[in-house]
Amino acid sequence: MTTLTDTRAPRPALIRALTAPKGFGDQTLRDRRPDAIELLGGIPDPSVLPSREIAEATARVLAQPGAPALQYSRTEGIPALREWIAAREGVPVERVVITNGGFHGLALAVQTVLERGDLVAVDNPIFPLFLRGLELSDARILPIGVGRTGIDVDDLADRLRAGERTAALYTVPDFHNPSQSTLPTDQRRELVRLAEQYGFVVFADNPYRELRFRGEQESVEPFHDSDLVWHVNTFTKTLGPGLRLGWVVLPAHAVPDVVALRSRQDGHSSTFVQAVIAELLTSDPLLFDATLERARALYRERADALADGLEAEAPGAFEIDRPDGGLFLWPRLRDDGVDAARLAADASAEGVEYQQGAFFASGPGTDAERRLRLAYGDTSAEQLREAAHRLGRALRRQGV
Amino acid sequence: MTTLTDTRAPRPALIRALTAPKGFGDQTLRDRRPDAIELLGGIPDPSVLPSREIAEATARVLAQPGAPALQYSRTEGIPALREWIAAREGVPVERVVITNGGFHGLALAVQTVLERGDLVAVDNPIFPLFLRGLELSDARILPIGVGRTGIDVDDLADRLRAGERTAALYTVPDFHNPSQSTLPTDQRRELVRLAEQYGFVVFADNPYRELRFRGEQESVEPFHDSDLVWHVNTFTKTLGPGLRLGWVVLPAHAVPDVVALRSRQDGHSSTFVQAVIAELLTSDPLLFDATLERARALYRERADALADGLEAEAPGAFEIDRPDGGLFLWPRLRDDGVDAARLAADASAEGVEYQQGAFFASGPGTDAERRLRLAYGDTSAEQLREAAHRLGRALRRQGV
Repeated sequence: MTTLTDTRAPRPALIRALTAPKGFGDQTLRDRRPDAIELLGGIPDPSVLPSREIAEATARVLAQPGAPALQYSRTEGIPALREWIAAREGVPVERVVITNGGFHGLALAVQTVLERGDLVAVDNPIFPLFLRGLELSDARILPIGVGRTGIDVDDLADRLRAGERTAALYTVPDFHNPSQSTLPTDQRRELVRLAEQYGFVVFADNPYRELRFRGEQESVEPFHDSDLVWHVNTFTKTLGPGLRLGWVVLPAHAVPDVVALRSRQDGHSSTFVQAVIAELLTSDPLLFDATLERARALYRERADALADGLEAEAPGAFEIDRPDGGLFLWPRLRDDGVDAARLAADASAEGVEYQQGAFFASGPGTDAERRLRLAYGDTSAEQLREAAHRLGRALRRQGV
Repeated sequence: MTTLTDTRAPRPALIRALTAPKGFGDQTLRDRRPDAIELLGGIPDPSVLPSREIAEATARVLAQPGAPALQYSRTEGIPALREWIAAREGVPVERVVITNGGFHGLALAVQTVLERGDLVAVDNPIFPLFLRGLELSDARILPIGVGRTGIDVDDLADRLRAGERTAALYTVPDFHNPSQSTLPTDQRRELVRLAEQYGFVVFADNPYRELRFRGEQESVEPFHDSDLVWHVNTFTKTLGPGLRLGWVVLPAHAVPDVVALRSRQDGHSSTFVQAVIAELLTSDPLLFDATLERARALYRERADALADGLEAEAPGAFEIDRPDGGLFLWPRLRDDGVDAARLAADASAEGVEYQQGAFFASGPGTDAERRLRLAYGDTSAEQLREAAHRLGRALRRQGV
């Protein structure tokens, strides 16, 4: 593992286990064209974030006598926000802890549940930043394939029966990042059953769940019915990443440990942000769903514009599963003769940036290196068609 | 050490080292009267927090095209805020990292600098929550006395010469919590010289510095001139704890480690909060100092009202050093016959709540158990006089 810097004093084991960014998350890979179209991150479009309503909620919150939004609050979160979330999730309020966004919830799970060096079953392909999060506990990984219906629970069962023992399992159950697949409800039940049987904890990372724009939602009840599941969520993709506001539905028995840890780290999430968002959500009970409806329509339009564009500009070059939600397309190169790394470089030269599929593999046995992760959330349909055009040109540089 | 809960799986060492609250921080110690006057915490008064201006800044920030305040930002903090802080602190912007408040800065220091089990020299008496923060690294402590001029640097030097080796030292240099003493500039220089000589890191925790209402400021240059000092600060006591917004001026070589750690924990402080406060501070360059002037005048009035009240209501009972700043009075009981624990219970029965001095000892050799920590920040002068009256009645229950 590559360490980051040399310092005068020996660095503690916690810090020594943190590796330098490479591949995904490395901002220095190449120079971009000034007119580059960036399909890099799962970023919500500003046009579907309720900026004006947030400003209005802020004005109301700060006009309250004594401005309680500017004062200390409890580590678990403020009651109004926890209650709104608990009602929406259908769980007791005591099981909801407010976080500084979804990744923070995962970090709290990693630190609270895992002993250093523990084995953790993870998605393959995977949201790569979670692997970096696991470095907080210097964890080892057991990659489990993710297909068109989410993580392969049967393969996991086989591994467990064969004697593998994991302390936890990490998966994105809805609109998986990067593959966009969703784990069916019966497979969620089976996953939780395995957790109960073998005694591991499930980290269910669910930032995209509310962004379904086609089809029917799968149930989260299997997660909420178990006291071995941490169901990690966030307002990042719906109200804005910059708020840094999320939550975890977690087993009641684990709440005191999380509170003990957080009261030694950052104390509590910003009372100000929590109070503003609680005011936003409760003062107009229709606002959140109306916001989501606008977002879903926009992302459906963009997903289709990108898929249509690729089919028109590079006919037959990609196998494309149109996503039912989320912010990513995960097309597979049909022609094994195409050099995927060269394609990314040529695409960059043509003026389109994306994440290479290879960055998302957590182990062998995946076709991730034959895929591209194209994020369409914050790019207009017109620009997405232009991106497809540029990608087609990049492909033709390899004679495709 | 008392653990918090029993769970089904063994808990990791990180969590096992976190003890249950006792004394300071334990909210369950006693029932309070409904009309209790609470002198418990270093809480800024809402009347001197710029609520209206924060709401106005929010409206301007959220009206910006594309609402960048709602998007992801860099782990170190947004440039506008870091630059404002760097200019005020007189340090290069690269050495400023934005945090979720002062305690978060301390937690990052503990996790980045200390190996588990390290020895840390600490204030005695001490801000007790820092001892809980040290549990993140399961650290051992070497208590160093704090007198009328801050931490006893000569005693520290003697201990070091005698062979004690500490990985770090923790102190509150300005308006020490709880004792209100301030470390003179020459002692800051000597402290940093010892750090250089013996190779330890200084955690200088400075939340009250801007609240000087009498006398001349001591210099922070000795801290900023050394690459062994983490100078931890926050907007908590000046713009409001609920923002959860602070910063650390730290050695340049340590910044990548902090960024690596935080990018695995909470990613970055709320872009929204950072952008609002940067707008607040830069749109009217006079606002911050005008806010501080109002706050200082208020806290001076309150400190004096409380000291005057105690002298009038319990003549001769206390030795009182009037503070030059900060939010606490730290009077000493002159009569060794007074039972300090009983006094706190009697005061509670009379309707005044405070923190017993005994909660603040980090080791033997302090007179903390003969003292009271009375927080006056968020209580009116009239109520402070009533609190002094009630405390006088509580003393007379013991025949004083």
